[in-house]
Amino acid sequence: MTTVSVLGASGYSGVELVRILSRRSDVEIVTAMASRQAGQRLDALYPDLAGRFDRVLEPTDPARAADAEVVFVALPSGESMQIVPELRTRGARVIDLGGDFRLRTAGLYERVYGRPHKAPELLAEAVYGLPELNRVRITQCSLVANPGCYPTSAILSLLPALRARVIDPGSIAIASMSGVSGAGRSSAVELSFGEVNENIRAYRIGAHQHQPEISTILEDATGVATTLSFIPHLMPITRGIYTTATADCTKEMSTAEVLRLYREAYAGEPFVRVKDSVPEIRSVRYTNFCDIGVLIDPQSGRLIILSTIDNMLKGAAGQAVQNMNIMLGLNEEESLAWTPG
Amino acid sequence: MTTVSVLGASGYSGVELVRILSRRSDVEIVTAMASRQAGQRLDALYPDLAGRFDRVLEPTDPARAADAEVVFVALPSGESMQIVPELRTRGARVIDLGGDFRLRTAGLYERVYGRPHKAPELLAEAVYGLPELNRVRITQCSLVANPGCYPTSAILSLLPALRARVIDPGSIAIASMSGVSGAGRSSAVELSFGEVNENIRAYRIGAHQHQPEISTILEDATGVATTLSFIPHLMPITRGIYTTATADCTKEMSTAEVLRLYREAYAGEPFVRVKDSVPEIRSVRYTNFCDIGVLIDPQSGRLIILSTIDNMLKGAAGQAVQNMNIMLGLNEEESLAWTPG
Amino acid sequence: MTTVSVLGASGYSGVELVRILSRRSDVEIVTAMASRQAGQRLDALYPDLAGRFDRVLEPTDPARAADAEVVFVALPSGESMQIVPELRTRGARVIDLGGDFRLRTAGLYERVYGRPHKAPELLAEAVYGLPELNRVRITQCSLVANPGCYPTSAILSLLPALRARVIDPGSIAIASMSGVSGAGRSSAVELSFGEVNENIRAYRIGAHQHQPEISTILEDATGVATTLSFIPHLMPITRGIYTTATADCTKEMSTAEVLRLYREAYAGEPFVRVKDSVPEIRSVRYTNFCDIGVLIDPQSGRLIILSTIDNMLKGAAGQAVQNMNIMLGLNEEESLAWTPG
Amino acid sequence: MTTVSVLGASGYSGVELVRILSRRSDVEIVTAMASRQAGQRLDALYPDLAGRFDRVLEPTDPARAADAEVVFVALPSGESMQIVPELRTRGARVIDLGGDFRLRTAGLYERVYGRPHKAPELLAEAVYGLPELNRVRITQCSLVANPGCYPTSAILSLLPALRARVIDPGSIAIASMSGVSGAGRSSAVELSFGEVNENIRAYRIGAHQHQPEISTILEDATGVATTLSFIPHLMPITRGIYTTATADCTKEMSTAEVLRLYREAYAGEPFVRVKDSVPEIRSVRYTNFCDIGVLIDPQSGRLIILSTIDNMLKGAAGQAVQNMNIMLGLNEEESLAWTPG
Repeated sequence: MTTVSVLGASGYSGVELVRILSRRSDVEIVTAMASRQAGQRLDALYPDLAGRFDRVLEPTDPARAADAEVVFVALPSGESMQIVPELRTRGARVIDLGGDFRLRTAGLYERVYGRPHKAPELLAEAVYGLPELNRVRITQCSLVANPGCYPTSAILSLLPALRARVIDPGSIAIASMSGVSGAGRSSAVELSFGEVNENIRAYRIGAHQHQPEISTILEDATGVATTLSFIPHLMPITRGIYTTATADCTKEMSTAEVLRLYREAYAGEPFVRVKDSVPEIRSVRYTNFCDIGVLIDPQSGRLIILSTIDNMLKGAAGQAVQNMNIMLGLNEEESLAWTPG
Repeated sequence: MTTVSVLGASGYSGVELVRILSRRSDVEIVTAMASRQAGQRLDALYPDLAGRFDRVLEPTDPARAADAEVVFVALPSGESMQIVPELRTRGARVIDLGGDFRLRTAGLYERVYGRPHKAPELLAEAVYGLPELNRVRITQCSLVANPGCYPTSAILSLLPALRARVIDPGSIAIASMSGVSGAGRSSAVELSFGEVNENIRAYRIGAHQHQPEISTILEDATGVATTLSFIPHLMPITRGIYTTATADCTKEMSTAEVLRLYREAYAGEPFVRVKDSVPEIRSVRYTNFCDIGVLIDPQSGRLIILSTIDNMLKGAAGQAVQNMNIMLGLNEEESLAWTPG
Repeated sequence: MTTVSVLGASGYSGVELVRILSRRSDVEIVTAMASRQAGQRLDALYPDLAGRFDRVLEPTDPARAADAEVVFVALPSGESMQIVPELRTRGARVIDLGGDFRLRTAGLYERVYGRPHKAPELLAEAVYGLPELNRVRITQCSLVANPGCYPTSAILSLLPALRARVIDPGSIAIASMSGVSGAGRSSAVELSFGEVNENIRAYRIGAHQHQPEISTILEDATGVATTLSFIPHLMPITRGIYTTATADCTKEMSTAEVLRLYREAYAGEPFVRVKDSVPEIRSVRYTNFCDIGVLIDPQSGRLIILSTIDNMLKGAAGQAVQNMNIMLGLNEEESLAWTPG
Repeated sequence: MTTVSVLGASGYSGVELVRILSRRSDVEIVTAMASRQAGQRLDALYPDLAGRFDRVLEPTDPARAADAEVVFVALPSGESMQIVPELRTRGARVIDLGGDFRLRTAGLYERVYGRPHKAPELLAEAVYGLPELNRVRITQCSLVANPGCYPTSAILSLLPALRARVIDPGSIAIASMSGVSGAGRSSAVELSFGEVNENIRAYRIGAHQHQPEISTILEDATGVATTLSFIPHLMPITRGIYTTATADCTKEMSTAEVLRLYREAYAGEPFVRVKDSVPEIRSVRYTNFCDIGVLIDPQSGRLIILSTIDNMLKGAAGQAVQNMNIMLGLNEEESLAWTPG
């Protein structure tokens, strides 16, 4: 029996962790914690949990959280770096779903997030928790920086082509469309139904913290400097991210050849499906899959890569549980292999 | 290991059965059959199944289907009664998700569905598969008539009050709002996104086949004649039914009293949750739950009952699997106890 | 040239008034006022207005507002009664879109809204601005209480049948489904996209302020006491209300007879269309129409009435402009006769 | 009084033309024609028109249509080229909303549309009806090829930058997201609510007929050869297109400089708004505006251009009416200057 704690359990990622973990007979949730919502029952906030998880949210307390073997930290970026050091000191293994441990240096963190890093000594220890990139290192680590939702879909899109040196790393253009749950449980007017429905808009172009996450992870993994534009869009669906990437090819290739390249790159990966057809969000919704489509555009000759994930699962809580499974040597697909429709 | 066949596997209810059953290690899907789509892979039609269920749809063939212990028939009403007799003759247990075996007499069937019944001899044998009403009889039968989606939510709403004789059975008014998946996978213009989105409309008032299903099942269960209006609406969501019922009370009651009545009626039921608050579709989506809220309207003094289900699960495939579990003496909640969010 | 002021112009109803009025060549908007948003340009909040209405919101000031002949008050209930007396004293004609002047007595107001009425002396002067009920009185008055959105659709549904005494006034059950814009521009979590999308829920049953508005207006208009239940629902669309009402008939009638009754009742009405078919929200969206369908339910024998409006137009700003047109002796349809699709 | 005919009036673009034109007091619709739907009343198909346009659809007949001064042809590509020659012979001015007269040569048409052109002699006469590009030529012509929806937003996005030679024409990447109405009134399963809702997917990459339309119009207008990728996506909204374009800059520029460039390029244009902020579909829905945002991405140094239109208005029927207004020397904004919200 694995014991776990969930910090930030009242948010969308946190409650998704509770949903997955509470279904497991081999996992015991020691505590689910929250700050403002502490004292409330989680199933009062998320009534789908009624009869499934009827516990009261405890106030955030690292010492108590560290009673568990694994602590999931689903706190906003900036908050987790204040808590993770104590969790680590007390011996807990940590999977952080925020952005605090994803960038390689404190200097880059400060430039991107606009505040100094509070636990720079942990940056070298943290492993970027994209199993398709770092599976072995995840097995051996005690601090996982769970990837952002956009980066998960963008990095999985570009990694095989960049590694094979078949695209010009200076020519990458990424457009991503995200469902609203990516912004978390929120009372902002701009996330109200009246403003989001029947609408789409780009946002934070050139200023989104996921852009340096994508480029530095790709650069570290491939040893190649990239220039990429990243345009995130908010679209009127609840769950899912759809990413469209284009890049100039460095040599002439057919669609069949790039398909083969991607199939080989992801052979054996339990949660990446390279498709013959165009991927769609509805095929991955409520699953931990990343579906990828690739083709050579006959008009421009460019490589076009389409990928899609459920932002709450492969883009957050599902991948976090996948990381836990890997870390503990459990079956990697445990509790993640269902497709509800 | 239980062996099952699914007829009509290319429709929304049929594929939902495949999704649930293919997750189970104690069930083997012998065959998934379809008519027009035979020869295609099911995961080509429903790409979420890629890597999960990669089998080819076989042509509909009752003899082959009856190789399994349990046959799920997810065919349109009118078609299943042509196939079920052979399935039964060959010894298979049958769970029919259509309307052919839900009404008590061939005469009533002909009046409601506008065609003669082809297998009237099986009507007496068929058990209406609402576990909360007929659990014991389901254990002992070989032919389950799985309830309609609207009837599931309406009957569960009204049964406790009618049995307790606290409402006037001549005063029941039901309004139900259904998601579009209830109409099945369809190419009708009136179910196209452009016509359904940002819209709602009532339909088939006074002519919907679920109205006599609701009233006759309630009458048989309570021994009381009812007069009820039933107004179904099509609303712009994919999954879910929300039912609002009102009726005059036969005696003065408080909300606390009716809550107690409903809680007692459904005590121990694994898939009915009587709520303190107003139920919402999002709490039951992708689950097999029926959530119910009850109150006495302070303005009119009437009893108001709100209930909600996922029309594809408790309203179709989930309840069918629940019936299989009961029929075979398995754990009733097996493969139905997850809440994906 | 008619001069007008709009108070509460930053809300959904207020900006809708600005949209309609700014299209007119015979109307001049003297001022658009707001409280918290004062000082901002209205087209910064609602960018569709860019190039159409580029004025700055002025702080709420009744004296300044009263420089116009007609003042539209689109403030929350409770606020307008603090301002309308001064507007009236200064000689402006007032059209109030809130609830402060819709109920007949201060006592009833206090019971329904939970606070004492601040301007009870104006209640007798105010005319309930439903043109189909009070057209002549609107011509002669200086204070219009513009009807609520739900009441507009419910009263227009029931008025002909109640006046003709063909339904039992003690048997009326109303279910209404409203789009989210009815709740106004809001940052409440429960109106966020993530909570509203793919969902429906009833709310404020037995406690909604529109229930007494509906019953008292109907009673005053027909001289008959009513007992009615009213169940409002929030549904995932932006604009529109759909109302389904049922009532027992006092005599046997055919659908053709009730159709004739409703057609006669609304003959000559420019904004009520009695339909042969079931009405749909999409037919009235962005219009000032109320579409009504009536039938006798063959199962229960009850009269069923379906009606639909755009809650922002016939349910708020459109009807307010219609009232202005009537009040000033202008063409009643001026600026309201378009159907954008 | 201008007399007009509408061919293909039963489709989404055709009925939108009827909606706009029937509001005008200076235009008389001589006939609205359709093929399969001939004999039906248009307001039976589109009930919003009830009481506004109650005419019966006539069978398609070019001779009869040519009784009007201006004929709008809203037929599928491939059909209009069979009818337009007779309309022109009979002296009618023609505005064709399909793709048959948008490409410069019969050879290109055949390559793109996969069929020979039936009226190649008219290609030289046809003027591409983008007023911001060809206003003077539209005044003098008798055959307007009304632009496609995607091309309208893409060309308006790129024209100023390409003309000013500030971007590398070989580096353009376009991603466009379209609402479902762009596909017309359809009964295809893949456009059913159940498949579109809560989903997004790219489609026809490298094979969409709008790609050569975009590139050839841009090339003719600027004299510069382009290489561009174009990725159209279907998203779950009814109306609207959102286009995101990126290109490498040929010289260092600030966002302020490109804003100035675009503002100057579109100075005086009644239907193009260059925005300080990110454009959103909801600001242009139900309007004839194209809203454009431009910025230099601080990460990649690229120019990013965002544009949005209502695909049924500026992307189809609205622009067609704008073209008629220009052609006939009427006020260009007539009947197009409203913003319903």
